[in-house]
Amino acid sequence: MVGGVNLVHGGDIYTQGVLKGVLLTDFSSNINPLGVPLSFRENIEEAVNNCERYPDIKYREVLNSLKDYTGIDKEYFVLGNGAAEIIDLSISCFKSIVIVVPSFLEYELDAKRQGLSIEYSSLLKEDMEYDYEDILKKMEKSEALIIGNPNNPNGSVIDQDKFKDILDYCEEKGKKIIIDEAFIEFVGDREKSFTKYLEKYSCLFIIRALTKFFGMPGIRFGYGLSGDSSFLKKVRDRQNPWNINCFAETAVKYVLKDQKYIEKSLKWIVEERKYMTTELKKLSFIDKVFDTKANFLLIKLKNKDIQKLYDYCLSSGILIRKCDNFRGLDEHYVRFAVKDREKNNKLLSVLKNFNLDY
Amino acid sequence: MVGGVNLVHGGDIYTQGVLKGVLLTDFSSNINPLGVPLSFRENIEEAVNNCERYPDIKYREVLNSLKDYTGIDKEYFVLGNGAAEIIDLSISCFKSIVIVVPSFLEYELDAKRQGLSIEYSSLLKEDMEYDYEDILKKMEKSEALIIGNPNNPNGSVIDQDKFKDILDYCEEKGKKIIIDEAFIEFVGDREKSFTKYLEKYSCLFIIRALTKFFGMPGIRFGYGLSGDSSFLKKVRDRQNPWNINCFAETAVKYVLKDQKYIEKSLKWIVEERKYMTTELKKLSFIDKVFDTKANFLLIKLKNKDIQKLYDYCLSSGILIRKCDNFRGLDEHYVRFAVKDREKNNKLLSVLKNFNLDY
Repeated sequence: MVGGVNLVHGGDIYTQGVLKGVLLTDFSSNINPLGVPLSFRENIEEAVNNCERYPDIKYREVLNSLKDYTGIDKEYFVLGNGAAEIIDLSISCFKSIVIVVPSFLEYELDAKRQGLSIEYSSLLKEDMEYDYEDILKKMEKSEALIIGNPNNPNGSVIDQDKFKDILDYCEEKGKKIIIDEAFIEFVGDREKSFTKYLEKYSCLFIIRALTKFFGMPGIRFGYGLSGDSSFLKKVRDRQNPWNINCFAETAVKYVLKDQKYIEKSLKWIVEERKYMTTELKKLSFIDKVFDTKANFLLIKLKNKDIQKLYDYCLSSGILIRKCDNFRGLDEHYVRFAVKDREKNNKLLSVLKNFNLDY
Repeated sequence: MVGGVNLVHGGDIYTQGVLKGVLLTDFSSNINPLGVPLSFRENIEEAVNNCERYPDIKYREVLNSLKDYTGIDKEYFVLGNGAAEIIDLSISCFKSIVIVVPSFLEYELDAKRQGLSIEYSSLLKEDMEYDYEDILKKMEKSEALIIGNPNNPNGSVIDQDKFKDILDYCEEKGKKIIIDEAFIEFVGDREKSFTKYLEKYSCLFIIRALTKFFGMPGIRFGYGLSGDSSFLKKVRDRQNPWNINCFAETAVKYVLKDQKYIEKSLKWIVEERKYMTTELKKLSFIDKVFDTKANFLLIKLKNKDIQKLYDYCLSSGILIRKCDNFRGLDEHYVRFAVKDREKNNKLLSVLKNFNLDY
């Protein structure tokens, strides 16, 4: 327990399922159900062979691929062993931070571990939208802000017009804005990313990950982007050499240009997100399905029944994410990942039975 | 340049060769030439499939494999994204340290980055053996010691009888001894490892890597061992979640029990180390071939000619390791990795011609 909140990560499928010999359908983990891209599988031999030598300590080929994918110059990047490393190292550069909550638990865990003083800006309860005025006000006393775009666990996306005052203020005052865009590709609209502001606003530090959209959390690859070269140096100086493994190197090389996978994924998420939102709203024990631009849905139940629902789903072979350990949420909230139609229907049919029992 | 020593890592094959489209034989990097074990290649599909989900945050299967391999209980381990992470994190726990030099540059880089005060204990110039008395004396003023076993770049192994006073002193005074055993398997004698003292001496912290002996530096996996659970907790608390990728997980599972690979590797290193030592001693421009228990050989030239030798080898497609940026060494010293017989003979024939030109 840290600060009254039990900071434990979501669905631990290893404890709940695999080690007990049960095959669970994991709706607690927000990974693209299309799985590992074929373009990576087809080139796995190259990765295995590269394994025999140290990775390029400067990761030149990786940076070239990222430049091609994002259209952003190589000098803007810092590479991490998963986004987790980049989040931790960027937070470690400050003494105080505003964390928009509820959000990915790692922000708070890292800030506490590094001894930062923390202010929280809560999403507005009604629609789980960002409280822009509150964020701006709280930035007066903090060196940095961390905010998800889309935000986890609700899937909201930052309104760029409303965020402009915060950007201008932080740029002028030399404060840093860390935007976690680990789920940005699922939005399906490149305009929603803040990468286009990197050149103008050196206060921006954007974090991305290969692993959610391209279905490879096990490969460990994330990156940070900023136009502030002295900040990037600060982060890089805290890193160990060869922090990216050779399989991540190969994955970056092939999957970022795998247009077939990208298009198929976008088609899937647009359809299934809409389908699940519509279907979940029909269930009588659900009070609210929050609007999402990501590949997961935050649900508010009518009653504080998430433990009952969790146990019920588990008994049907489904792992869901209870959200009561997210700061500001309680036993009303659960999160479901969006999966493929077959799995989504499996979840829906289980939920319908819960409905009947209820 | 840090403290008068140019702290740059060894052979950068990417700058020197691959990116220029040349295929170099890399004698600067100390990796088992038998390459990636077949037992890993044969199970690569399992790793690719595991890639689709987050690794077990507790790495239970990895710990089981390490227990089987080392015979040491799971509670003794901390796992790292390469030994580099473990070296850095363990050093970061102290304010002062004795570094035995010349040695792996990363010790000094990490200690400086973390702001430790450093004392150096130099190997004895004559035979490059550890100066046990000097180490013991210097431990009076330091919280920790870091020492290679075998030591890089010379391949010396700690004399356990002579080291006993240091062990007893550190155990009594609550100081920590970090022993880097990244190359220990190449010694071919399990008795030379300090793991057998882990239970008795909680002052010990031993660092190992999968990647040198099992030929997989690109996979990034290292681990630390200690009987001091509060120290282990300190290291773990500084780590990010999911720091080990799924390919390293799979590799650990299969290669550590790959007896065929292990036996073949031991047969190779014993033969080739002896062969290379004998043959190099015949070359008239070489003053000394230091006794080694590892898979590399430190050489002292008669003259300060390493740049000339380096350029000469490079022009013949061979990359060697100049050792003048190791603390205490100068332009007399080079290091050669031990490769397979064919490559070793290629190096020898190139060196013989240098001999003639000389």
